[in-house]
Amino acid sequence: MTPALEKLVAHFASLPAIGRKSATRLAYHVLEMDDDAVRAFAESLLEVKQATRLCTVCQCYSEAEVCHYCADGTRDAGLLMCVEDNRALEAIEALHEYRGRYHVLHGVISPIDGIGPEQLKIKELLARLDGSVREVIIATNPSVEGEATAMYLGRLLKPLGVKVTRLAYGLPVGGTLEYADNTTLLKAIEGRTEV
Amino acid sequence: MTPALEKLVAHFASLPAIGRKSATRLAYHVLEMDDDAVRAFAESLLEVKQATRLCTVCQCYSEAEVCHYCADGTRDAGLLMCVEDNRALEAIEALHEYRGRYHVLHGVISPIDGIGPEQLKIKELLARLDGSVREVIIATNPSVEGEATAMYLGRLLKPLGVKVTRLAYGLPVGGTLEYADNTTLLKAIEGRTEV
Repeated sequence: MTPALEKLVAHFASLPAIGRKSATRLAYHVLEMDDDAVRAFAESLLEVKQATRLCTVCQCYSEAEVCHYCADGTRDAGLLMCVEDNRALEAIEALHEYRGRYHVLHGVISPIDGIGPEQLKIKELLARLDGSVREVIIATNPSVEGEATAMYLGRLLKPLGVKVTRLAYGLPVGGTLEYADNTTLLKAIEGRTEV
Repeated sequence: MTPALEKLVAHFASLPAIGRKSATRLAYHVLEMDDDAVRAFAESLLEVKQATRLCTVCQCYSEAEVCHYCADGTRDAGLLMCVEDNRALEAIEALHEYRGRYHVLHGVISPIDGIGPEQLKIKELLARLDGSVREVIIATNPSVEGEATAMYLGRLLKPLGVKVTRLAYGLPVGGTLEYADNTTLLKAIEGRTEV
């Protein structure tokens, strides 16, 4: 393999979930692409970094100073959904059901990775709780870290007089009891609702 | 998602074996990379195209006019292994056993994709058969197209008085008869060797 190819393989392999074999395949694919397509790809990499910043209100990735969710006057400003990252925000948006605002934490508390509350956008969240927000929905992932972050935020926000809720745990729709893991099943029993 | 992100997602998704979900994950990862790392990645994409050409002898990817396999005087110039692409060449090289030369076809005959012999580096292969080559090993993949290409090359090269061989089919080492597919099993019986 040529030095330039080796270098490109290393770049691809440094991306998440791309091993050396896939990286090699991708690098060879680049070699077979048109010059123009490769140039456009390279420019797109640079452009995404230059054009993207954090919304000064909700901290989501945005090209404008204030993102279009925060700028949208028809969305309920009294309802904030706290998500770990932009991908979670987009999963919620794709439902076309939620009409409140967001707050992107950019991570979760994870002592093992050296990530404490001060590395997350919590200061920015507190700054938004000026009395206009009546409910914060904590929508961190159903992982140990997501749960710890939800607990931390609950303890932090409740004394401020804001309602704090958490997305429901339970059986995934379409699943079967037989294949549900024990924790999910216990959570589904705990959280049972009246028919 | 911002327009710049959408564009980068589309670029990643155009690569082989990367779906939209993975492409989105990669694009967000790029946003979280250092500026310098992203710049190096973009430059590496451009560099690989600029620095790489085809070896004028064996047609493998090379930075020099003649690649280091062809320039290596200790390799047997009488033995040519024909491979589909550079990845196959590297798989053979990784064995550290083969000491002949290579010829990279850059594809296989595939009428369904509109690829005929004239799109492959066969003219360049014929030009190398000046009497100094005693054996051509056809090492195309064990696929329908690889097989058809091997047959085509066999018919083309044999009349030129060169020995033409094909990699052996048989049971993969470490496999079990039980899990071998019928074609492989039949080939293993056909190609049985004396103990």
